[in-house]
Amino acid sequence: MSERVCRWGILSAAGIAKKNWQAIRLAGNAQLMAVASRDIAKSRQFIAECQSHVPHPQVPVALGSYEELLASKEIDAVYIPLPTGVRKNWVVRAAHSGKHVLCEKPVGCNAQDVAEMVAACRANNVQFMDGVMFMHSGRMAKMREALDDGTSVGQIRRITSQFSFHAPEEFLRDNIRMSYELEPLGCLGDLGWYNTRFTLWTMQEQLPEKVSGRLLAQLGRSDSTAPVPMEFSGEMWFAGGVSASFFCSFQTNHQQWAHVSGTKGLLRLSDFVLPDCGAEVGFEVANSLFAIDGCQFTMEPRARRVTLNEYSSNARHAQETNLFRTFSQLALGGKPDDRWAQQALNTQRVLDAFVASSRQDGKLVAL
Amino acid sequence: MSERVCRWGILSAAGIAKKNWQAIRLAGNAQLMAVASRDIAKSRQFIAECQSHVPHPQVPVALGSYEELLASKEIDAVYIPLPTGVRKNWVVRAAHSGKHVLCEKPVGCNAQDVAEMVAACRANNVQFMDGVMFMHSGRMAKMREALDDGTSVGQIRRITSQFSFHAPEEFLRDNIRMSYELEPLGCLGDLGWYNTRFTLWTMQEQLPEKVSGRLLAQLGRSDSTAPVPMEFSGEMWFAGGVSASFFCSFQTNHQQWAHVSGTKGLLRLSDFVLPDCGAEVGFEVANSLFAIDGCQFTMEPRARRVTLNEYSSNARHAQETNLFRTFSQLALGGKPDDRWAQQALNTQRVLDAFVASSRQDGKLVAL
Repeated sequence: MSERVCRWGILSAAGIAKKNWQAIRLAGNAQLMAVASRDIAKSRQFIAECQSHVPHPQVPVALGSYEELLASKEIDAVYIPLPTGVRKNWVVRAAHSGKHVLCEKPVGCNAQDVAEMVAACRANNVQFMDGVMFMHSGRMAKMREALDDGTSVGQIRRITSQFSFHAPEEFLRDNIRMSYELEPLGCLGDLGWYNTRFTLWTMQEQLPEKVSGRLLAQLGRSDSTAPVPMEFSGEMWFAGGVSASFFCSFQTNHQQWAHVSGTKGLLRLSDFVLPDCGAEVGFEVANSLFAIDGCQFTMEPRARRVTLNEYSSNARHAQETNLFRTFSQLALGGKPDDRWAQQALNTQRVLDAFVASSRQDGKLVAL
Repeated sequence: MSERVCRWGILSAAGIAKKNWQAIRLAGNAQLMAVASRDIAKSRQFIAECQSHVPHPQVPVALGSYEELLASKEIDAVYIPLPTGVRKNWVVRAAHSGKHVLCEKPVGCNAQDVAEMVAACRANNVQFMDGVMFMHSGRMAKMREALDDGTSVGQIRRITSQFSFHAPEEFLRDNIRMSYELEPLGCLGDLGWYNTRFTLWTMQEQLPEKVSGRLLAQLGRSDSTAPVPMEFSGEMWFAGGVSASFFCSFQTNHQQWAHVSGTKGLLRLSDFVLPDCGAEVGFEVANSLFAIDGCQFTMEPRARRVTLNEYSSNARHAQETNLFRTFSQLALGGKPDDRWAQQALNTQRVLDAFVASSRQDGKLVAL
């Protein structure tokens, strides 16, 4: 561990934070100082449970309010996995308290909210970043190489992705993602955020000129004032003729595949959000060859797998660990990298356009 | 070879017919009697060339007109790979001549045309079928089993497919698929027909309630009176909540993948139109398992490949050979199976709806 470490606080004892408990532990330049919940018993329980799985050398402090955490002089950065519907206020307050902010996705209920959060962070010279782990995977650089080498994929024409899981009964009944107040974007925010992010990353952060969105199913838990999207599809059109489509769903088996196809080939991965567990992390490049020889028409499959063996089964190189390491570095450096804020804002803007289109039967919405 | 064989004639010496030259040779219940072209020299050349690759025991006769072929008492069935724009007339005339008709796809320029062709075949009690080879692959039955077993895929939610190739310069300049008169549907007819067919097959021939289509690029060769679709995407919505999307393109590398995902898993194949050459024909079923254990979030990939080794590298079991064998059987049986005509008509109806939607900026079109 280097001399200076980024001192973290977690704002809310949400389930997803358990994964990041380990990531902070392994980042190498980070230390978890405190976990805050509105109920100190919950903070204590969260800490005890996580500590039993992945012990931190110095046990984090349990706090009973978010205010207390934001007031602490011992915290440099906060991770905020609060529900989207109640998050903005705390992001803005964290920024005004001089804390760097790592914010779960979907970042906001709409782009206006995100713009406010980002503005607060900029005004206070703190780092803003969303919690999309895959952006920090070691394979992104390798994929960029393949996308840019001119031969693996060639000129990009089409991006297609799906991110889905089949929610069990208890999810439909109790989960915050089934509450319009807490997560108004439903599956579009929870899953489509990743499809959109992956697409924008592939396009080097170019925004689509127009989009179309279709709400395919909706449902809400009993206390929800409105239904939330349960299944959603969208299409994006970029200057230069590239198009992209995606499907996300709370009603379809666990899937997280992405295909980027171009004039010369295809880059594909079946685990773009959360890498499959096991021996290696990677992706495939396919360049099938069609040939006619006399009366024979043959399609010769040619594919190679690009792997990152150094990342294999090593949690120190896991994408979530990289995320906390990179963020900690930026926080310690004292010079925020605004590209992360811009990416979050762009993603939310595209989501807003999807929502607007879906309310008009898939009508094209310009960005 | 059984005693009675179906006696075939080919109407036009199109390139795709070369593949079927071999298929007829290997079907076991078929014999190719004649090849007709408007230019007898072309017929002779076609026969000589094919015969040098795959010799038929009895060399087919070269004819200099389609009329002559249709008038022949020695022909039971005709294979018509003429361009779509000029095909209807010859299908109708073939039917009235009492010939069974195997018709290349896209079957017609629109559903009205196809209805006329099918009506002529029905009136003359001859078999009608389109030339979609994959419908005759041995793996279709295995895929049906997986789709219906309740656990591999569960309830179908989403079908996604892509069929594309990157046309070379000479294709753009000379190919009939770049002529509006000859192939007005461009890539939608040439490629999208397969995406649509696969989707309808997956849905057990249920028609979508509504569709949306987007023309993504268009172009025509110099003598074309209008541009043809070069790139097209579409989405279909079925009663019961299943949706399907596809992308087809003359501008994107060779790809022919299809994913069928449901509540419990995914059926996927990367070669749904023309099976990859090599050792085996098959598909994959994936049922990934997501688990949370303490601070560990893992996605365990679970996939099995279903293969048909008996079909491996054996042209007698190739899908195109099966097509001619099945068709010959139906022709010899004298009792047309109308389901094939209905499938072609349904496919064309859906294509018509895609075209109509694309002319209204993707507006929903009901079927």
